Amino acid sequence: MKYKVNSQLVYTINEPSTFIFNVQVVRNDFQKIIAEELQLDPQLPFDELTVDDNGNRYVRLVAPVGNLQIDYQATVDLSHFFTDGKSIAEVPPSQLPMETFQYLYPSRYCQSDMLFGLVQSEFNDLEPGYSRVAAICDWIYEKVTYLSGSSDSQTSAYETAMQRAGVCRDFAHLGVAFCRALNIPARFVSVYAYQLEPPDFHAVFEAYLGDRWYLFDATKLAPKEGFIRIGTGRDAADVSVATIFGSVKLQEMKISVDRVSEAKEPDNMGEAIALA
Amino acid sequence: MKYKVNSQLVYTINEPSTFIFNVQVVRNDFQKIIAEELQLDPQLPFDELTVDDNGNRYVRLVAPVGNLQIDYQATVDLSHFFTDGKSIAEVPPSQLPMETFQYLYPSRYCQSDMLFGLVQSEFNDLEPGYSRVAAICDWIYEKVTYLSGSSDSQTSAYETAMQRAGVCRDFAHLGVAFCRALNIPARFVSVYAYQLEPPDFHAVFEAYLGDRWYLFDATKLAPKEGFIRIGTGRDAADVSVATIFGSVKLQEMKISVDRVSEAKEPDNMGEAIALA
Amino acid sequence: MKYKVNSQLVYTINEPSTFIFNVQVVRNDFQKIIAEELQLDPQLPFDELTVDDNGNRYVRLVAPVGNLQIDYQATVDLSHFFTDGKSIAEVPPSQLPMETFQYLYPSRYCQSDMLFGLVQSEFNDLEPGYSRVAAICDWIYEKVTYLSGSSDSQTSAYETAMQRAGVCRDFAHLGVAFCRALNIPARFVSVYAYQLEPPDFHAVFEAYLGDRWYLFDATKLAPKEGFIRIGTGRDAADVSVATIFGSVKLQEMKISVDRVSEAKEPDNMGEAIALA
Amino acid sequence: MKYKVNSQLVYTINEPSTFIFNVQVVRNDFQKIIAEELQLDPQLPFDELTVDDNGNRYVRLVAPVGNLQIDYQATVDLSHFFTDGKSIAEVPPSQLPMETFQYLYPSRYCQSDMLFGLVQSEFNDLEPGYSRVAAICDWIYEKVTYLSGSSDSQTSAYETAMQRAGVCRDFAHLGVAFCRALNIPARFVSVYAYQLEPPDFHAVFEAYLGDRWYLFDATKLAPKEGFIRIGTGRDAADVSVATIFGSVKLQEMKISVDRVSEAKEPDNMGEAIALA
Repeated sequence: MKYKVNSQLVYTINEPSTFIFNVQVVRNDFQKIIAEELQLDPQLPFDELTVDDNGNRYVRLVAPVGNLQIDYQATVDLSHFFTDGKSIAEVPPSQLPMETFQYLYPSRYCQSDMLFGLVQSEFNDLEPGYSRVAAICDWIYEKVTYLSGSSDSQTSAYETAMQRAGVCRDFAHLGVAFCRALNIPARFVSVYAYQLEPPDFHAVFEAYLGDRWYLFDATKLAPKEGFIRIGTGRDAADVSVATIFGSVKLQEMKISVDRVSEAKEPDNMGEAIALA
Repeated sequence: MKYKVNSQLVYTINEPSTFIFNVQVVRNDFQKIIAEELQLDPQLPFDELTVDDNGNRYVRLVAPVGNLQIDYQATVDLSHFFTDGKSIAEVPPSQLPMETFQYLYPSRYCQSDMLFGLVQSEFNDLEPGYSRVAAICDWIYEKVTYLSGSSDSQTSAYETAMQRAGVCRDFAHLGVAFCRALNIPARFVSVYAYQLEPPDFHAVFEAYLGDRWYLFDATKLAPKEGFIRIGTGRDAADVSVATIFGSVKLQEMKISVDRVSEAKEPDNMGEAIALA
Repeated sequence: MKYKVNSQLVYTINEPSTFIFNVQVVRNDFQKIIAEELQLDPQLPFDELTVDDNGNRYVRLVAPVGNLQIDYQATVDLSHFFTDGKSIAEVPPSQLPMETFQYLYPSRYCQSDMLFGLVQSEFNDLEPGYSRVAAICDWIYEKVTYLSGSSDSQTSAYETAMQRAGVCRDFAHLGVAFCRALNIPARFVSVYAYQLEPPDFHAVFEAYLGDRWYLFDATKLAPKEGFIRIGTGRDAADVSVATIFGSVKLQEMKISVDRVSEAKEPDNMGEAIALA
Repeated sequence: MKYKVNSQLVYTINEPSTFIFNVQVVRNDFQKIIAEELQLDPQLPFDELTVDDNGNRYVRLVAPVGNLQIDYQATVDLSHFFTDGKSIAEVPPSQLPMETFQYLYPSRYCQSDMLFGLVQSEFNDLEPGYSRVAAICDWIYEKVTYLSGSSDSQTSAYETAMQRAGVCRDFAHLGVAFCRALNIPARFVSVYAYQLEPPDFHAVFEAYLGDRWYLFDATKLAPKEGFIRIGTGRDAADVSVATIFGSVKLQEMKISVDRVSEAKEPDNMGEAIALA
């Protein structure tokens, strides 16, 4: 299934500032980049950097005082893995791949060690497996209100569990933290999302089950089949759209995600979906 | 119904220290003190102080290096108010007595302002009234594990809501905080409790409903008919059994509460019970 | 010294809402009310309530949908107690009046029990007495930035000690918490303040030293001689200008404090000032 | 300089449990392993795993009910890099190597984003460079008390900054968090430490300055020349000596670190020391 992504960010810069953008989509066998373009206005020099272990792509630049516009377009072909959730088991720590362990530990915004009591009380009696992570998503969806402006950059899963309000970032953090407290590796994923309304960067999460990372979205705001991976990390600290050192102001942000050519909507070809 | 209370505390004192004890039971029309004795060993001079608005009684003394034993005995006649919970309504803020307002505000261990989201999500749809506070107690009883040593003197309702473990103090704080977040005045009460096993100081809470303060105990460890009031306050900060300035160590604590004369167990003569 | 106070609050009310205002000044021997007027537009019925132990005055009313304006004017004659700070000692817990104890305990926004380590590290070696509380104010003044919008209604002393930014309410909470951690009773005071720029409700604190409550203001934004007491409490939870149950929006707030008749500015007749 | 390390851990295991040990020293050009042995009693099968990007080595095993003893010995030759601290500058974000960025972000125990205010207030005016990180260590050393039992596995830099007490882990977390809040990449390092009394696993930190990671130890309990690297991570969540899934009890721990052959104590050949 092919998608065309556009994202545009416009900043006013008050002092020379360093930006690290993470807006480019990841390139791998499940997500092929057919065409891609990055434009800066003014045309500043920049570094392109990729982190090996998760394929995150970063653009670093120093912007002078004035305006900065970054435009990114990509055409991407997604090959999701679809399967029936019923057959997917949790993996005991003795059999987890070593590279999943970092996603088992608590992180800044997903303090799973502090959520252990709540998780025991709410989810411990559920049948282990894909269905338990799906139940976690249902719990979050039912008990937490999606409310713009209800959280900020310091809000963590611990607070969201209490405030019961947040945005996609907070829903993802809560899902990650709950999974880790059950010894299920879980990580934060920033995506472009087809049919997300209003269009925006989106945040979802992945849990390691069976033999791969499955996608989950407790906000239920867009179909998982249409997620295009940008960044993967322990939590939002790792995959900011823009990490900025300096005094700047975001003036405008425009996102669009469109289907290419094929006329019908994406089929949900299985309850469980993975993009890797 | 008459009860005989005994409490004994033994301390080792490493430097001259000031103690403020709150072990004496409150004296009022619903709780008549028939006989009472307080003994200190050594026989130190002490101040006896009563705070007007809630009748809490304090003993203050300065103890020299060595041992200190305080023994308190009281025979108390309780006249509880019993009624059917169904008829008891919540009181809107426009009609609450002014003296209940201090019990509506957040306090150190009952940060109701920070629990608003959770309370909205869990309890807002319940029918207002006595039954809603009873439902809060059921929620706490079901979701929080009573576990000695799981909390300390800094533990607040906010943490207990997350850790889902605590002792009577924490159960009471959580009940108080939940009520306040629903605009129901609630306060912390330390009591001697008949049939509490093992015998100990107990902490429960009161909610202002209808026209009086009703007793609630989310631990369900002892019958409310057998509660004998010691201290009333916003939370545990106000009604410590012993507030100590200095370096001391508690060596021993013995509590007993016995029925006097009448042979049968206390009757529960109504769902809702008040002691005032 | 005579002052004329005006305060005006204008609200838009979206649903019938209960207000509890605490804008009237306290009446006592040190603060005589020469004239006073309270006006509501529309002219709604209201309750006037006074809390005994600290003289706080409250106005309670239920406002219908629409606008509400409350105007308060008072002419007040202040008789401050002035003395030299050097002679004022801290009072050991064994000699503190019982009514000061509630101001020794931690409260919602002044979690002195959680600030004990910081206070030991920063202030324990200072000479006890008035000068130590003055040093606490200097520490706050130097290390914390006064910044509108840097805190909200949930911000407590614990966070302010870390964020190092806040408004008068936060400065007062920090002063209160630091004092309590040193076993000095301390309380929050809301005042009208002469020469405060821009004019606003102000928050300061009192510490119990020697034989009375002395005024302190770590913001150093206005002379202590010109403080006119509105409310006294454990922290801001007790003395909100307006406690509101319902959906309303503050549209406008105007405050003025003027000297009456006497031409010269208030003299600072002593380092230490008390208003009671 | 050669060192011989011995570490022994003995556990009682109450149910079959998975262990992930991180007790083996890192192998690289600056830290050559001359001889090494790992023994398990009983002789259980185990996985040996190494994480690529920092060289951390892990041993994973499933232990049955009973006792488990793990013994590790290594002879290591250290080649520290010594230089004069004065010449070492902080690196602006525009020039930092990409692989250092993950150590700039806040993590579970090093919430640098929440310490920004304190860091601005205490360290922002200091001259940037090695000396500023050294000043951070001095601040921690002076203001925080090293006290066994004062913290637990959930204690983070945020709490330590307030409680002003902790152990080596907490001192390291605080150093890391302070550096990150100044945009200096910093990471947590677990080490064996020569001359540490009493012998134990030790935790220190590294800051990225100039063109490498320099060692810092705010506890000042042992000479940096004698640190032998075990694990490197964002904070203690990444480099636990033992991550355990199951119910077990540590019965005994013995550590020793001895100089080999050469008679004289390690020379401090420069203020700034790096081990990589």
